[in-house]
Amino acid sequence: MDFDPETLRFDAQGLIPCIAQDVNTREVLMMAWMSKASVTRTLDSEKVTYWSRSRQAFWVKGESSGHTQTLVELRLDCDRDCLLALVRQVGPACHTNRRSCFYTAVREGAEAEIMVPEAG
Amino acid sequence: MDFDPETLRFDAQGLIPCIAQDVNTREVLMMAWMSKASVTRTLDSEKVTYWSRSRQAFWVKGESSGHTQTLVELRLDCDRDCLLALVRQVGPACHTNRRSCFYTAVREGAEAEIMVPEAG
Repeated sequence: MDFDPETLRFDAQGLIPCIAQDVNTREVLMMAWMSKASVTRTLDSEKVTYWSRSRQAFWVKGESSGHTQTLVELRLDCDRDCLLALVRQVGPACHTNRRSCFYTAVREGAEAEIMVPEAG
Repeated sequence: MDFDPETLRFDAQGLIPCIAQDVNTREVLMMAWMSKASVTRTLDSEKVTYWSRSRQAFWVKGESSGHTQTLVELRLDCDRDCLLALVRQVGPACHTNRRSCFYTAVREGAEAEIMVPEAG
């Protein structure tokens, strides 16, 4: 069956969450949102392209920082309301220069920073 | 710093997305939603407890199917608006009996089923 982004289930804002996972290390890098058009752009360009809710604009990951995500494979879940992008990540995925945005763990009731920023 | 679920950023429905990742295989298993109270219950019980948007009720993963998720570690992202739960998954995570909900890949413009249901 041909894949049609139209068949995904978008929320009231027309967006769907997309989880980015490093295809090599399998680390979960980040979660951001895609519009129907950003799904199409991601598949066509192989550059992971989110929709920035704060800027209300396409967000080609790494376009300004150089920390790009090249799409290896896009997957969808059973409910068709969440995406998983397997990516080749250049540099850190997080704007704080950490490898992943999920650098804070809850350990014994307290927040623990489990990743340090990479050297610039 | 003590972790207070109050400091997370919930959406207009009072929910936050939570990604479940298998702590051993690092597979991304599913994404579902948590309320503030389900975050607390998950941490207190170590049983991953989502908020079912369709049933508007707590959803202790695996309570009826037996396919439980035991929390190993809860992490939060830089924006405090997404959670990552590292879990020990018993049986398949997906209600279709597949290991992960993300069993459909987009390959050459078509949908490909990349995981079969596990034997019951």
